[in-house]
Amino acid sequence: MTESKPLVGILMGSESDWDTMRHAPLTLDRFGVANESRVASAHRSPELATAYARGAKGRGLQVIIAAAGGAAHLAGVIAAHTPLPVFGVPMLGWSLNGLDALLSTAQMPKGVPVGTLAIGKAGAINAALLAIRVLSLHDPELAAKLEQFHEDEAQKIANTVLEL
Amino acid sequence: MTESKPLVGILMGSESDWDTMRHAPLTLDRFGVANESRVASAHRSPELATAYARGAKGRGLQVIIAAAGGAAHLAGVIAAHTPLPVFGVPMLGWSLNGLDALLSTAQMPKGVPVGTLAIGKAGAINAALLAIRVLSLHDPELAAKLEQFHEDEAQKIANTVLEL
Amino acid sequence: MTESKPLVGILMGSESDWDTMRHAPLTLDRFGVANESRVASAHRSPELATAYARGAKGRGLQVIIAAAGGAAHLAGVIAAHTPLPVFGVPMLGWSLNGLDALLSTAQMPKGVPVGTLAIGKAGAINAALLAIRVLSLHDPELAAKLEQFHEDEAQKIANTVLEL
Amino acid sequence: MTESKPLVGILMGSESDWDTMRHAPLTLDRFGVANESRVASAHRSPELATAYARGAKGRGLQVIIAAAGGAAHLAGVIAAHTPLPVFGVPMLGWSLNGLDALLSTAQMPKGVPVGTLAIGKAGAINAALLAIRVLSLHDPELAAKLEQFHEDEAQKIANTVLEL
Amino acid sequence: MTESKPLVGILMGSESDWDTMRHAPLTLDRFGVANESRVASAHRSPELATAYARGAKGRGLQVIIAAAGGAAHLAGVIAAHTPLPVFGVPMLGWSLNGLDALLSTAQMPKGVPVGTLAIGKAGAINAALLAIRVLSLHDPELAAKLEQFHEDEAQKIANTVLEL
Amino acid sequence: MTESKPLVGILMGSESDWDTMRHAPLTLDRFGVANESRVASAHRSPELATAYARGAKGRGLQVIIAAAGGAAHLAGVIAAHTPLPVFGVPMLGWSLNGLDALLSTAQMPKGVPVGTLAIGKAGAINAALLAIRVLSLHDPELAAKLEQFHEDEAQKIANTVLEL
Amino acid sequence: MTESKPLVGILMGSESDWDTMRHAPLTLDRFGVANESRVASAHRSPELATAYARGAKGRGLQVIIAAAGGAAHLAGVIAAHTPLPVFGVPMLGWSLNGLDALLSTAQMPKGVPVGTLAIGKAGAINAALLAIRVLSLHDPELAAKLEQFHEDEAQKIANTVLEL
Amino acid sequence: MTESKPLVGILMGSESDWDTMRHAPLTLDRFGVANESRVASAHRSPELATAYARGAKGRGLQVIIAAAGGAAHLAGVIAAHTPLPVFGVPMLGWSLNGLDALLSTAQMPKGVPVGTLAIGKAGAINAALLAIRVLSLHDPELAAKLEQFHEDEAQKIANTVLEL
Repeated sequence: MTESKPLVGILMGSESDWDTMRHAPLTLDRFGVANESRVASAHRSPELATAYARGAKGRGLQVIIAAAGGAAHLAGVIAAHTPLPVFGVPMLGWSLNGLDALLSTAQMPKGVPVGTLAIGKAGAINAALLAIRVLSLHDPELAAKLEQFHEDEAQKIANTVLEL
Repeated sequence: MTESKPLVGILMGSESDWDTMRHAPLTLDRFGVANESRVASAHRSPELATAYARGAKGRGLQVIIAAAGGAAHLAGVIAAHTPLPVFGVPMLGWSLNGLDALLSTAQMPKGVPVGTLAIGKAGAINAALLAIRVLSLHDPELAAKLEQFHEDEAQKIANTVLEL
Repeated sequence: MTESKPLVGILMGSESDWDTMRHAPLTLDRFGVANESRVASAHRSPELATAYARGAKGRGLQVIIAAAGGAAHLAGVIAAHTPLPVFGVPMLGWSLNGLDALLSTAQMPKGVPVGTLAIGKAGAINAALLAIRVLSLHDPELAAKLEQFHEDEAQKIANTVLEL
Repeated sequence: MTESKPLVGILMGSESDWDTMRHAPLTLDRFGVANESRVASAHRSPELATAYARGAKGRGLQVIIAAAGGAAHLAGVIAAHTPLPVFGVPMLGWSLNGLDALLSTAQMPKGVPVGTLAIGKAGAINAALLAIRVLSLHDPELAAKLEQFHEDEAQKIANTVLEL
Repeated sequence: MTESKPLVGILMGSESDWDTMRHAPLTLDRFGVANESRVASAHRSPELATAYARGAKGRGLQVIIAAAGGAAHLAGVIAAHTPLPVFGVPMLGWSLNGLDALLSTAQMPKGVPVGTLAIGKAGAINAALLAIRVLSLHDPELAAKLEQFHEDEAQKIANTVLEL
Repeated sequence: MTESKPLVGILMGSESDWDTMRHAPLTLDRFGVANESRVASAHRSPELATAYARGAKGRGLQVIIAAAGGAAHLAGVIAAHTPLPVFGVPMLGWSLNGLDALLSTAQMPKGVPVGTLAIGKAGAINAALLAIRVLSLHDPELAAKLEQFHEDEAQKIANTVLEL
Repeated sequence: MTESKPLVGILMGSESDWDTMRHAPLTLDRFGVANESRVASAHRSPELATAYARGAKGRGLQVIIAAAGGAAHLAGVIAAHTPLPVFGVPMLGWSLNGLDALLSTAQMPKGVPVGTLAIGKAGAINAALLAIRVLSLHDPELAAKLEQFHEDEAQKIANTVLEL
Repeated sequence: MTESKPLVGILMGSESDWDTMRHAPLTLDRFGVANESRVASAHRSPELATAYARGAKGRGLQVIIAAAGGAAHLAGVIAAHTPLPVFGVPMLGWSLNGLDALLSTAQMPKGVPVGTLAIGKAGAINAALLAIRVLSLHDPELAAKLEQFHEDEAQKIANTVLEL
């Protein structure tokens, strides 16, 4: 993790989510965006989770990414305790292929929004990229890096050679 | 609602759940079990919900019933803040026929249990009946009423006449 | 299993559920709650299942946990034959990732409640914890252990260190 | 209902299923197959349901049709208590469009079979027709009626005129 | 397979279903019921499938079991070409855990019934047991074997010992 | 329907599908493509359906559109009996919102393809448009009409004015 | 709509989405955030949609909200053509209760993120609130309004009185 | 791939789809139909995908096959930019067993059709076979090969021997 004051906070409901969620800080690091990662369960350590959310804006965070599986309440609980934009990443969990976590994260009632990304690793990476889109609104250097990233991605695809 | 000190607290995430959830206090009233009903959203009024859960045991409540729709986090959040048994009722919500609320309520991670009932009105009634089963463990009079209830139900079915 | 008179009875529809369900007695043992585990199928040994349910209260049991997969009828059948609180645990089964067992356990019609936990191992552990919540209503020592358990869980999470 | 000794018994878990299930006796009546219809809940009147199943063969019934919604356990419970072929009809229920009842009826564990028909009215009619297929194995007159029925159905379709 | 004239015909849409479906003839063999197994696809060899269905009754078959995966049309197509009772077994297939095959087999329109069993191996065994229930209506010896089977199953469960 | 020799044949499993499926001939008529519509059930009138499919190419048809609900086998059965391209339209049916028909139409096993369109009216219109795409490969006049259609559609959208 | 230069652009795939999506501009108007609403289909007017996305940043927009039903591609296509944060709102559509639109919007592959809100009206409102969270990172006045909004919401809930 | 001017273009959203999708060119090669395969993402390389679609007809392509997983927008985006028939193949993806890709491909709004095949390898093969059905409308030699293929498939099935 970077040493500057973090702009993006990454929470996950269980240490077992780290293998998937580490792709979020790896993506942010690649763009040079200071970040921090924590485990904080909405159910097993609610005070920790709530306190993190309440203190986030004051500590200079601008975006929170929250990941959980099953009845994935973490992103919603965080969003209820902070005015920062919160992006949720549904984890695959142990039974329903992530459908439970996707619905638990996305189907928030009106009043408290969570921007939900795809289930699993793609969601972890995309939550970081969405945070970068938000931060680059006021950071032209980061915006330039993002533009370059998209060009590189398109170029990689254009260069792909398929062999039977 | 009864005037004695309530033994069962009924929470719902939105006033719009009341039309379904009123069947819980109606069922408890029928058995003479003191109860109270409140709206408290896990997302829009998290302090209210948390405070209710934290104070519940001290106020003499023995069971909490929590109902919500969509990303139905209420029962899980309540269970995280009280050692009382918590029973969750998924509401039908606005799109996925209650599947989202069922998964959000039932798929709790290990450590913090929620006993989940059926979606909608059947769940509201059954949450009350499950609370009555818990309370009747130490209340022989209530146990007798419950036994009578089951006998009456069976009798009603036995008496049904079908006509083409 | 403990030697005292069991307070919690754990039933499962098939011996193959034991690998998952043994986490229920393990959890109860950890809290010193006397329990017993049995195989009894709602379909293949209905008399055994029914007899168990009918005799449970008289033998001093206070909670029954019932687990089954597929068309998971066990918890419902047990609840139909006992006034005790019944908690159901859906097993993963052989095809639909436990969705069939979850719906078969949770969607009980009004009149006979089953408190349903999460699919699989998390549900096995949480069914035990929910039984402990019920028992601790009248057992201050158990209530203290439960409080300690929640504090320990929160502390473990607070101590987690993530490394990229 | 016919006055002869019934060959097909039709059970449903709730009187509210009758509006859909009456299409089963109507279909059997049309073929002149003696039948009877009863309400008997696997959960609210388990003794009634079990007794019906146990006595069915002795009373001369040859097929049992069982219909239920939600956690639709009726057909499975009946099949556990009779050696007769049991055909299950999932009812639409109150929330998940009958998916819960379909899975609860069809996903029976090995050992106790239920032949499951379509959700709702189509299933009610087809359960009767499947019973007729079974009975016509040893009833050439009924077999002839069935053949005629299929020819009439095909002819009706061939005669359909569509107008824009 | 037995050498007597088969009473039960078992069809499957693909040779790859055999590993699952062989449990149907194994079950029938155990009860001494003559049977035959064939591959016949509703789509890739429709004439073969149709011809089999049309000739089945004349050849003395009394029940047809049809198994297929994905868009599982086989049982429905067979039922459209024979007046015999047809029992369908949904195969797990290659993507949706058998949900597609279950719906394709069970959701038949009114007029042509298919009695659908569980997805996969449990369904293969139960289709055979359902055929045995049908055949035992007019075969007291088979009925006695079936009764014994159910008693043995119940006894096996009663004898199960669980060890932590 | 047009008077020229039809190029596109539209089949549906039930007269009740006509209210939805009439949008297919209406679309074809708008483009001046000769077509015909028939009811032919894969289950209730299998000979009619099969005969239609077998004769289609010889009669000059180039595309067949087949629509059905529930266990929607029609498109697959037609595709098994003709070498023409077959496009399937899942109908909403009576319970599962068309999910059953979508899976029954789309999940065809390798060897016999069905190009599946959206559930319901959108699928009826799009099946006609896909047939037009196929026919316009060798009909420049039709291709020009199709190009104009897409331009008109885009223009209509561009002209939309939204008012709060 | 407001007269200042819009900061939030709201797109929808069809004019029929407007009845639901107008809650997004209504919410933004309530907070005094300049916005604009347009119909632009990813499929029927792809040039219009692409051009809008490409020009959005240059015109001063900071967030794009995109809503569509069925195979809801609009948000993804927009996100592919702009570096701005894009929030997607799944519409209920015509058959699967919005599940199709939810999966089509949320399950984006890594590289191009869409922050997905709830299905329907709740999602429309929450997309606006999420845009407000993003904008309030650099607008203290807007941040104060948001804080007030959350307090008002909590107060309204605390004031709710339920009557049996 | 063949050296003649390709008639069928095969696109896939990611190089990781190639292991499944190579069965499309393999099938086309077996029938001697010239084809080409490319990676082109609707999201990560939208210009490439759009340019391919726009140029396809002019280059002599007659059918485009497009495969993608997750929020599978590729086929829809291609269909929006070409008047050629487009056939979509849903990939299994990383979480929901291909249900997301199936819905994202099939549930296109009216106006822009995609003919959707089965999820995964069966869909890849069948997309090629559907393209062959379209091409054989004006290619009697190819039509003869297709007829032979179906006969061979039926014969292979008829020759299958099952051994217990």
